[in-house]
Amino acid sequence: MQTVISIDIGGTKTKLAHVDQSFNILDQLVIDTQSFHNETSYLKGLFHATSSLISRTGMAEKPVGIGIGAPCGIPNEGIIYQAANLPLSKKVEIVKLFKDAYDCPVYLTKDSYAAALGEGALGAAQAMSNYILLTLGTGLGCGIVINDQLVIGNNGQAGELGHTISVPNGRSCKCGQKGCMETYVSATGIKRTVFQILASSNKDSLFRSISYMDVTAENIFLEAQKGDPIALEAFTLTGKYLGEKLAELVALFEPEAIILAGGLAQAKDFLIEPTIHYMEQQLLDCYRGKVNVLTSTLGNNRAALLGTASLVWQNMKN
Amino acid sequence: MQTVISIDIGGTKTKLAHVDQSFNILDQLVIDTQSFHNETSYLKGLFHATSSLISRTGMAEKPVGIGIGAPCGIPNEGIIYQAANLPLSKKVEIVKLFKDAYDCPVYLTKDSYAAALGEGALGAAQAMSNYILLTLGTGLGCGIVINDQLVIGNNGQAGELGHTISVPNGRSCKCGQKGCMETYVSATGIKRTVFQILASSNKDSLFRSISYMDVTAENIFLEAQKGDPIALEAFTLTGKYLGEKLAELVALFEPEAIILAGGLAQAKDFLIEPTIHYMEQQLLDCYRGKVNVLTSTLGNNRAALLGTASLVWQNMKN
Repeated sequence: MQTVISIDIGGTKTKLAHVDQSFNILDQLVIDTQSFHNETSYLKGLFHATSSLISRTGMAEKPVGIGIGAPCGIPNEGIIYQAANLPLSKKVEIVKLFKDAYDCPVYLTKDSYAAALGEGALGAAQAMSNYILLTLGTGLGCGIVINDQLVIGNNGQAGELGHTISVPNGRSCKCGQKGCMETYVSATGIKRTVFQILASSNKDSLFRSISYMDVTAENIFLEAQKGDPIALEAFTLTGKYLGEKLAELVALFEPEAIILAGGLAQAKDFLIEPTIHYMEQQLLDCYRGKVNVLTSTLGNNRAALLGTASLVWQNMKN
Repeated sequence: MQTVISIDIGGTKTKLAHVDQSFNILDQLVIDTQSFHNETSYLKGLFHATSSLISRTGMAEKPVGIGIGAPCGIPNEGIIYQAANLPLSKKVEIVKLFKDAYDCPVYLTKDSYAAALGEGALGAAQAMSNYILLTLGTGLGCGIVINDQLVIGNNGQAGELGHTISVPNGRSCKCGQKGCMETYVSATGIKRTVFQILASSNKDSLFRSISYMDVTAENIFLEAQKGDPIALEAFTLTGKYLGEKLAELVALFEPEAIILAGGLAQAKDFLIEPTIHYMEQQLLDCYRGKVNVLTSTLGNNRAALLGTASLVWQNMKN
């Protein structure tokens, strides 16, 4: 039985798994990315964990292949570039480093592309040839699969949906633009929306007594479940921004489904219902009622790990 | 030498060509689409022209293949659906009709997809794997090629860029929405822009003495060349709408180039310069200066014909 090593590099945790061809996770290891303060120590920790996992698999000599997903991973160059939330320098030749260390095929992809592949392999997008995955976390990531292939773009940097405009001259984004979708549709986006509604409405809300620092997507979801009017309105408004953008994506790609993943997607119907409402409202007749908006069935912990495994299998088939 | 028959169905003219594998047009025929008043007579005329062209080629028995490009052509269903500008009923099974008549492989695609394939085969997008073609005519068509394949979508209706929103709650579009890109960036769009500027500014212009009915993209271009301030401002504003949308497309697809075709693209620098300016202004750093905005090198007369020929060759290889 052939198996691979999957690595999901994240700003908080780095997860490693030993995965078989049926996408069973046979063994796994997690290291705390934030506990490393520089590139040398992080890479040392990463290689140590990889070697431990490989030795535990009982692989005779070397793995069949290693798949890596990382924020700012540029697939065709094999580098991680300007990953602000990782303890790495500006440009890290991660594929070369792993090839040198383990003498096996190594494939890199962006974290959101990996999650899209994972949902296609074993999750909500199984058997689909055309779908789009959005990860609604601190930021907004995106992985697009068209004709059974990832859309990586000319230099491996496609899918920056988070930095397309939702509101012309809208909220300031850390990228320097104004009105980026990420500033509206993400865990931080919905928090900003709560404060916008606190300012514009007179409604009573628990959020009138909590500081900006202490509001999170989680407590907005909790209060929405209890019926807090501002939390509910924040979800409706977030669904409006999201639905209107999804209508644009449908007109461009006509996917079979759009899959929502990440923390904010856990709010399910609070987010999905207004999203579908506003998306359908803006769709051309020929698309109405034909594009599914689904939530991830794998979740953050498995989607990217299974996606990087799938990347190895795909590449080894070609 | 193997050759194919290419057919480019348009609202004004229907063009037929006999094309070889090096994309040489060996012979061609044009029929006047508008001279036919119903489906029966149009199809009779179309088959008559096809048979004439085939007999002139000296093909022994039947063509190797026929490629058809048409507005509202749905590739995977082989039908032309709701083509308002053609003398056809709501749904025409064009592929079946041609297969029955000529007993050879027949491939259908949307007119804008055909033009994109044509530019890739012999035009501005030669040797590119990732590019987007926009046809700026009466409306706005779009063909997207990613990983060397057309993006046709789940039901063959992808690429409706013209009906994504440029201005929220903006100009009324014939599709029923408001603010569609097609109402800003097309031959009719720039005309509407001229009238918007006539209303908002006090500048002198020839267009103060011409009725809405008589203004065309052609005379806006002519007057821009003579320095008419409102014509010039209309091109700048059109380039702004176009450039801002192209920035969104770059963030999603990261293409190698975006190719502009159709009547309005003949204005070249009047349109291209502001387009690039506003596109670059809105791009993330990682894309700046890397995506070319080019004009079609084939023109309306050849792009779609060569594209449908290319479609036949591609399909026969698979």
